[in-house]
Amino acid sequence: MSFNTFGHLFRVTTWGESHGPALGATVDGCPPGVPIDEPFIQQWLDRRRPGQNRFTTQRREPDAVKILSGVFDGVTTGTPVQLMIENTDQRSKDYGDIKDKFRPGHADITYWQKYGIRDYRGGGRSSARETAARVAAGGLARAALNTLAPEIRIQGYLVQLGPYRIDRARFDARQVNRNPFWSPDAQAAEQWAAYLDELRKSGNSVGAVIEVVARGVPAGLGAPVYGKLDTDLAAAMMSINAVKAVEIGEGMAAAALTGEQNADEIRMGDDGRPVYSSNHAGGILGGISTGQDIVVRFAVKPTSSILRPRRTITTSGEDTEIVTKGRHDPCVGIRAVPVGEAMMACVILDHILLHRGQIGSAVGETRGQIG
Amino acid sequence: MSFNTFGHLFRVTTWGESHGPALGATVDGCPPGVPIDEPFIQQWLDRRRPGQNRFTTQRREPDAVKILSGVFDGVTTGTPVQLMIENTDQRSKDYGDIKDKFRPGHADITYWQKYGIRDYRGGGRSSARETAARVAAGGLARAALNTLAPEIRIQGYLVQLGPYRIDRARFDARQVNRNPFWSPDAQAAEQWAAYLDELRKSGNSVGAVIEVVARGVPAGLGAPVYGKLDTDLAAAMMSINAVKAVEIGEGMAAAALTGEQNADEIRMGDDGRPVYSSNHAGGILGGISTGQDIVVRFAVKPTSSILRPRRTITTSGEDTEIVTKGRHDPCVGIRAVPVGEAMMACVILDHILLHRGQIGSAVGETRGQIG
Amino acid sequence: MSFNTFGHLFRVTTWGESHGPALGATVDGCPPGVPIDEPFIQQWLDRRRPGQNRFTTQRREPDAVKILSGVFDGVTTGTPVQLMIENTDQRSKDYGDIKDKFRPGHADITYWQKYGIRDYRGGGRSSARETAARVAAGGLARAALNTLAPEIRIQGYLVQLGPYRIDRARFDARQVNRNPFWSPDAQAAEQWAAYLDELRKSGNSVGAVIEVVARGVPAGLGAPVYGKLDTDLAAAMMSINAVKAVEIGEGMAAAALTGEQNADEIRMGDDGRPVYSSNHAGGILGGISTGQDIVVRFAVKPTSSILRPRRTITTSGEDTEIVTKGRHDPCVGIRAVPVGEAMMACVILDHILLHRGQIGSAVGETRGQIG
Amino acid sequence: MSFNTFGHLFRVTTWGESHGPALGATVDGCPPGVPIDEPFIQQWLDRRRPGQNRFTTQRREPDAVKILSGVFDGVTTGTPVQLMIENTDQRSKDYGDIKDKFRPGHADITYWQKYGIRDYRGGGRSSARETAARVAAGGLARAALNTLAPEIRIQGYLVQLGPYRIDRARFDARQVNRNPFWSPDAQAAEQWAAYLDELRKSGNSVGAVIEVVARGVPAGLGAPVYGKLDTDLAAAMMSINAVKAVEIGEGMAAAALTGEQNADEIRMGDDGRPVYSSNHAGGILGGISTGQDIVVRFAVKPTSSILRPRRTITTSGEDTEIVTKGRHDPCVGIRAVPVGEAMMACVILDHILLHRGQIGSAVGETRGQIG
Repeated sequence: MSFNTFGHLFRVTTWGESHGPALGATVDGCPPGVPIDEPFIQQWLDRRRPGQNRFTTQRREPDAVKILSGVFDGVTTGTPVQLMIENTDQRSKDYGDIKDKFRPGHADITYWQKYGIRDYRGGGRSSARETAARVAAGGLARAALNTLAPEIRIQGYLVQLGPYRIDRARFDARQVNRNPFWSPDAQAAEQWAAYLDELRKSGNSVGAVIEVVARGVPAGLGAPVYGKLDTDLAAAMMSINAVKAVEIGEGMAAAALTGEQNADEIRMGDDGRPVYSSNHAGGILGGISTGQDIVVRFAVKPTSSILRPRRTITTSGEDTEIVTKGRHDPCVGIRAVPVGEAMMACVILDHILLHRGQIGSAVGETRGQIG
Repeated sequence: MSFNTFGHLFRVTTWGESHGPALGATVDGCPPGVPIDEPFIQQWLDRRRPGQNRFTTQRREPDAVKILSGVFDGVTTGTPVQLMIENTDQRSKDYGDIKDKFRPGHADITYWQKYGIRDYRGGGRSSARETAARVAAGGLARAALNTLAPEIRIQGYLVQLGPYRIDRARFDARQVNRNPFWSPDAQAAEQWAAYLDELRKSGNSVGAVIEVVARGVPAGLGAPVYGKLDTDLAAAMMSINAVKAVEIGEGMAAAALTGEQNADEIRMGDDGRPVYSSNHAGGILGGISTGQDIVVRFAVKPTSSILRPRRTITTSGEDTEIVTKGRHDPCVGIRAVPVGEAMMACVILDHILLHRGQIGSAVGETRGQIG
Repeated sequence: MSFNTFGHLFRVTTWGESHGPALGATVDGCPPGVPIDEPFIQQWLDRRRPGQNRFTTQRREPDAVKILSGVFDGVTTGTPVQLMIENTDQRSKDYGDIKDKFRPGHADITYWQKYGIRDYRGGGRSSARETAARVAAGGLARAALNTLAPEIRIQGYLVQLGPYRIDRARFDARQVNRNPFWSPDAQAAEQWAAYLDELRKSGNSVGAVIEVVARGVPAGLGAPVYGKLDTDLAAAMMSINAVKAVEIGEGMAAAALTGEQNADEIRMGDDGRPVYSSNHAGGILGGISTGQDIVVRFAVKPTSSILRPRRTITTSGEDTEIVTKGRHDPCVGIRAVPVGEAMMACVILDHILLHRGQIGSAVGETRGQIG
Repeated sequence: MSFNTFGHLFRVTTWGESHGPALGATVDGCPPGVPIDEPFIQQWLDRRRPGQNRFTTQRREPDAVKILSGVFDGVTTGTPVQLMIENTDQRSKDYGDIKDKFRPGHADITYWQKYGIRDYRGGGRSSARETAARVAAGGLARAALNTLAPEIRIQGYLVQLGPYRIDRARFDARQVNRNPFWSPDAQAAEQWAAYLDELRKSGNSVGAVIEVVARGVPAGLGAPVYGKLDTDLAAAMMSINAVKAVEIGEGMAAAALTGEQNADEIRMGDDGRPVYSSNHAGGILGGISTGQDIVVRFAVKPTSSILRPRRTITTSGEDTEIVTKGRHDPCVGIRAVPVGEAMMACVILDHILLHRGQIGSAVGETRGQIG
């Protein structure tokens, strides 16, 4: 995680602004021989695409990805894969009236202070549009995982929208793709719809919590002590726009547990692998995967682009008020679900490659056998 | 954050195991001309040292730091600073009876699976002793900050121990160094003492939440989009042993806020700098510091080394039970306070150096002037 | 220098193949506020463009660069700059007859062995076309240098073509742009023209030596001991296609000198800076610039694509002969001149940024004053 | 190659100065399970140790290495290996009379200008003593290679001392360890001895050329296009003190060859591997190993510490003369042989790990089969 690149061996550099000609991801280190084409990546971008229902921004972008390099005859060649998405609906006039005002809670003031450049047209590099490039890279990572470790399954979903959480007793993974909120709890989705409709009318916005789970991850991934799997996941999720917290397994709740409660007990499974009685650890111990589900959650703050007036200052230092018109998501957390999945895919693929390099084991093999 | 090194320009590589001859930190990239000596670093190590009260492990180590390189005539030379701490109280026999059993909730099973090496003597590299090296490096970072940005103040404290949180209304920074828990709430410290005494007697352990605040950090630090200040802080804190969650500002609670509530309103201050009505952002917007306090929290899980029997397996794959004797912290979170401070110091120094390199501004100067 | 990225703070990732839709450079870490537009970069690409005279390949590509990101209102914003060059003259049929044969001296056999992918269309990623992306990035680096250190001047030229060297006594920098060989010795250029015409007719090729000089580089640049200025220059030049050797200052000839001969004597100059009696060091001592001219040379081997039959094998392991038809440079070293200049510009800019970050000095200031 | 660290996955950070308490190498990324002990590493240090004959400095240091971490029960654990060498013969008084004078051709002036710190005691970090740490790390790399790729053999030797080259017709690898110059040509060694004796008496010094060959390196190592095997070797060798040039295979001489001469012809070998008629390429094509011998040469300049008076300036800017007394090597190139071998071992091991990570092949396997 450095500047605009993340990853150790599977290295993704995203580039581009919300209102420039294009944005994309330069992906270096994808293994050769991975079958890939544009439609495969497009399906993940389509999950993130705005304007698909009334709960996301009405900005309409096809977000069509083009592969410019690194693929020949339908497979990756081992050279950098350039994934480009052209910006088509830039409509920068929407932003004209906030040209000189900072939005409270938005990065426009800190970008200005740091860079001395004001790209008032829609957040520039700090725009959530940057995450489209991550999703494209995540699509490539999924393709590589399908080749290297086809048993791995990654799924994200919303577990909280504003003050309303899902009921874990109603958790049903099949529901996730059936509602506009990626909710695994159909009843919560209805509650959220009513709540968001109200919020949207009042010109307000709200935060959310996303959970991403990776199943089928082999034991042994992680590079202690500063490239731990959870360290890299924390960095990956925290780097997403508007994220303010990351949890692994029990997360913040681990503080209130006793050691007796928190210790996931172990028995020997019939297949010669350890079986755990619980997964407080979220699938990671000492920064290394246990073979259990990897469970990550992150909190997304409400967008700062709201129709409610807020006190602020102008670039010339005058006190004023601001109201952000234009097309905005009442809950940006919803579209963060495919982004979180993409980051999970990239991090896990990266650690599979690292593990091969450092330990020399194929995916799923461990050096230290039990039994 | 890569393998055993963290930092972009101020790069800290920690090395050493709990029961080897020594451990330490190789610090590359410390600016030249920083006044430093062993006592300055020692003071921070002393805050972390075990055996200082009945609430921390009774393992007694002087944890005396030696500077082996990079300092001449009392100042840093710009070359690598080697900070070494010799292990004196190794007493490995304490661990003999758990030689072949994995501790539920402990990294011994994943290290075994990954590396095929079992250093049963006390956690090896996954031991909390590794954090002594971080604290030493943090001491050097503090010295450099004192030279480059003397207005920066970093302080950590416990805000939750087990189920008991501090009362923010009773917050008093002067209390932090007056009780064995680094509690800013004297009353909470008493409650915690009683609770921990009970836990300790029953051979159990518990988690905690640590908050670390950096005051006086200038606006403009952070390298979007993957070297954001909060991204690096999240990675830094998550890399500490037993940490399961990291929050910036509102953290997980940001999910429940509306955009109106979350937007820290801005007015122009008398000194020509923006003044914020609140700090939900924790001092970071778009990954860049705002000039407000940087506020980070992290949750530490309870240690897995407890006297309560837990079901587990042996290295040869047999089901069994384990009880961990020996000297352990009933709440490792307490000693994580100076570790969190050290990571904060390292990350902020690193970003000051990055900012100088990329933007060319001295500390406290911003490229984009307001007003 | 890692995978497809080079640079510490000014980080250039090149991507793309000779026969894909496009290639380019993703440049991360360019300082904000640098005036830049496409024509400025294009001028450097035009120096490298093929088909400009009879001594370079007749492949005709406009090599028109597009800036896709990182620039707003005519200046860099501090975010990644994407420089794209579309491939227009791909004519892959030229390569049809060598589809299954390895070219002796060419990377097609090692790429095949490593990646198991055979992009027979013209070298794929190992094609000299990759260097167009470097030249584009070098153009951006030059723009940044013009802003940060306008006194720096970078010039490359040929000093040897095949067995014929320039005569240093006839060195005239103004000649460099006046002949198709970038020769500072007009007479040598004539000799080379006659020699190359003959070679071209016989279907053969030949090597060359390029020298690149940077004037006006301040003292103090370089990050010992593994990011030394000469180390990074050696890596930068050796990474260019077909380069087999890199020299700094005296280079290989330093081996035959005595210490007395090699020691560049120092006197105090009128402007308060050291003046050297000679420059055997090539402007670098201990990996750090002295303030003298930085002098680098590198040798380029002859291209392996020749019309002379050579014994080789096929992908299926059969012994055979090969003759490479198509459009090739009889001396690829000629077009390596602007590439060497580009690498020099990138490395020096990178070290200026590093120096600011680590030492905190503006360009041209030194921490240690003499006198 | 960054600051004081080199390597991608096998990462070596050297630390320490010539006159501090100790120096060493922090090696991160060594694979687990490699048998290693101090005597194994010591044997390589002993090859580099000064004071073994009249042609090297009379400074006497045992250069005894201690392993402080990363090894348990005689094998590496996968955690950082700390290799420490204590300085015993510091005798800093030898340097007293040059305390304020810069040595022409020495890094003391550039270190002063960059860092503003003057460690006059013997070169500090720029001293050749730093290379002891490299040799220790190289010993560990050799141990890992013995485990992972036991067929690899690395040998360095002198091919030129001052103006005198070896005669390739007399090349005999068995001679290398039988003379104080690591010369493969016994007759040249005699010539060099006479020449050096004369030089030493006159208080002068001279340069040398070292060649390092790695045999048994499998095809496919190298990470194009900026982590090419030759790029990394060039950086590794150029980072050694006093090195001014690096050549791969034909090196500078490649410039004078025609394509016909330079193309190493290929036939299919009986063992199903390609056989080359020659090795102009030095075992590397397109940055990737061919399976032939890897051949690297580098030129070492004469040491600047000579008894002959040279004109120079003082730190206060006065013109003066300097004569360097004390114990110095008349030809530092001799002791650079084991250093070059160490760098070769580290780079090749690093690329084996990278290759496993990126390609997933075991050592010696290639993805692209021929035949």
